[in-house]
Amino acid sequence: MTEDTLPTSTASGPAIDADSWVCPLPLRDSPNIVMGHGAGGALSAELVTHLFQPGYGAAGTTELGDAAVIAAQPGRLSFSTDSYVVKPTFFPGGNIGDLAVNGTVNDVSMCGGRPMFLSTSFILEEGTPLEDLARVARSMGWAAERAGVRLVTGDTKVVDSGNGDGIYVNTAGIGVIPDGVDIRPDRAQPGDAVLLSGCLGLHGIAVMSSREGIDFGTTVESDTAALNDLVDVMIGTGADIHVLRDPTRGGLAAAVNEIARSSEVGIEIEESRLPVPEAVSNACGLLGLDPMFVANEGKLMAIVAEQEADRVLEAMRGHEAGQDAVYIGRCVAEHPGAMVARTGIGATRVVDLPIGEQLPRIC
Amino acid sequence: MTEDTLPTSTASGPAIDADSWVCPLPLRDSPNIVMGHGAGGALSAELVTHLFQPGYGAAGTTELGDAAVIAAQPGRLSFSTDSYVVKPTFFPGGNIGDLAVNGTVNDVSMCGGRPMFLSTSFILEEGTPLEDLARVARSMGWAAERAGVRLVTGDTKVVDSGNGDGIYVNTAGIGVIPDGVDIRPDRAQPGDAVLLSGCLGLHGIAVMSSREGIDFGTTVESDTAALNDLVDVMIGTGADIHVLRDPTRGGLAAAVNEIARSSEVGIEIEESRLPVPEAVSNACGLLGLDPMFVANEGKLMAIVAEQEADRVLEAMRGHEAGQDAVYIGRCVAEHPGAMVARTGIGATRVVDLPIGEQLPRIC
Repeated sequence: MTEDTLPTSTASGPAIDADSWVCPLPLRDSPNIVMGHGAGGALSAELVTHLFQPGYGAAGTTELGDAAVIAAQPGRLSFSTDSYVVKPTFFPGGNIGDLAVNGTVNDVSMCGGRPMFLSTSFILEEGTPLEDLARVARSMGWAAERAGVRLVTGDTKVVDSGNGDGIYVNTAGIGVIPDGVDIRPDRAQPGDAVLLSGCLGLHGIAVMSSREGIDFGTTVESDTAALNDLVDVMIGTGADIHVLRDPTRGGLAAAVNEIARSSEVGIEIEESRLPVPEAVSNACGLLGLDPMFVANEGKLMAIVAEQEADRVLEAMRGHEAGQDAVYIGRCVAEHPGAMVARTGIGATRVVDLPIGEQLPRIC
Repeated sequence: MTEDTLPTSTASGPAIDADSWVCPLPLRDSPNIVMGHGAGGALSAELVTHLFQPGYGAAGTTELGDAAVIAAQPGRLSFSTDSYVVKPTFFPGGNIGDLAVNGTVNDVSMCGGRPMFLSTSFILEEGTPLEDLARVARSMGWAAERAGVRLVTGDTKVVDSGNGDGIYVNTAGIGVIPDGVDIRPDRAQPGDAVLLSGCLGLHGIAVMSSREGIDFGTTVESDTAALNDLVDVMIGTGADIHVLRDPTRGGLAAAVNEIARSSEVGIEIEESRLPVPEAVSNACGLLGLDPMFVANEGKLMAIVAEQEADRVLEAMRGHEAGQDAVYIGRCVAEHPGAMVARTGIGATRVVDLPIGEQLPRIC
């Protein structure tokens, strides 16, 4: 399901109807972003009223001012931000808009926070089609509604043609961490089990195939998805979840390495247990990539005490976003800080933190 | 005072010392941003450890992870975001770094929030000198320390050479709104006084003169500054402040127009009372600009009940950021939604919301 299945009108406003725009400049004759859209004047205000608010729909607010006022309960908040520069803007299974919402929702969730509010900030290249921007905004509204978060404040800047690349989006998110939850990258302990919520590599291969025009015989769709509800279910088991991490840029290898270093444990991954779809496997073989290094945008890795692993795994499998969850390895006292992969024939090899990225501009 | 007066080392870490960098790629031979710096692997981690953390200094954290965990008190929070694309990156009186910190601190403050935490997210063009980025990071740390806010979480993306423009920065900020404070753009009432914290036009003219290489005889420096402490002092008077707004993009004219529309009042500004420095006045005359439309980054406009105006004005003048504060006009019941300027000879003219911006890429 992609943003294309969205209804063209939403609870909070009509769909974009260029013919009804009231505008001091004839926008109907200029269907693209102009510098004035980023200038804080009438054109900026119209972009908010006629494009962002209808696009965000029920997930947005009628104000979208310079700052939002939100109510806070006492306790701990989770606060995260990411900028998104993925190329191309639209790819199989998603686009920069739902990616930007889901990505920050997930970052807020990975320390146990329940995401509540997101900001959205755009850097647009002069000449970007308003239609593209509207499609991205609709995706953001749709993804936010699905994830149960509100898009409460925002900003738009425009840069000269040639000084940007269509649409860049930043989202920042705030979530509330329930009492008693203590999920941190430095809490992995020797003996802990390592769980993965589903198969590897879909997002990276989807973006690469659409960018490079490579046809792998079957369309690989990005797995971009919000994981906050899955995290809720996992926390709801009462199990003491030590670490959560979404293996995005740098893939599973970067995520496991970072946790191994933060927690000063070794982490052993059994390669034969890693779920890699055939299309991803074929694409990786063709391109010389390792699926462990390819980005995911709708998967999480969990580290829990060994005796609680089955219970958490069962809860994950009962949720749509975790139905293919598997046990993939364990934490050990040996070689602290290092990730080791156990191959099918029983040999082991060290998997280091990637230096850069096999595929740039993946998110 | 600019970031150049910063000490080269800070409480939380040494200054950047390229010779001591430990790096799998010889960064010393590549003094510029490469794609790998945005890939979430070892190069990204080193950029955080060796550039951002020393640059942010005491205002940063030792973690700067995907998400920050912060403590919340019950009550209302103010949440804001802005992306910054100012061109050039460095201008008289500041750069994109302190601008990005001050701008979001001010947006959080304009609804009465006390800014506490900021996120920082970069979109860097491949080839950007690391030295430039380090200078920007130091400015951000310096500005954050001055404003009393922490830089708690962040992100870095890199785009191909030609797909960006050096350094873009997004900041999002969270502040706490004290009980009893109710500052909103729709609270202006007929009879209210309009106050301005200082002179107009410095930021816009500083950026324009440095971008276009125009010499106005004297160097105009940007007024970029955090206003949260001034707001604290104003709130501390106990006066019921109805509206606060920093007149940034679109200048005073955009700010006044927006408030007039939100509050459905008319706002009359006495032009002769507007403090415009001679250099700004000369530059505007030369360029055909109106100082009311030129951006400011360290000024605020306050709307308060007429009987409390003197008390608030006095408090503002007692603060460094408001020492030149003046009364500039009042809210009226006539022509709701419109801004009217009263000229020196007693005539009035309607000042409309600017359509675009006289100067693009100003912040």
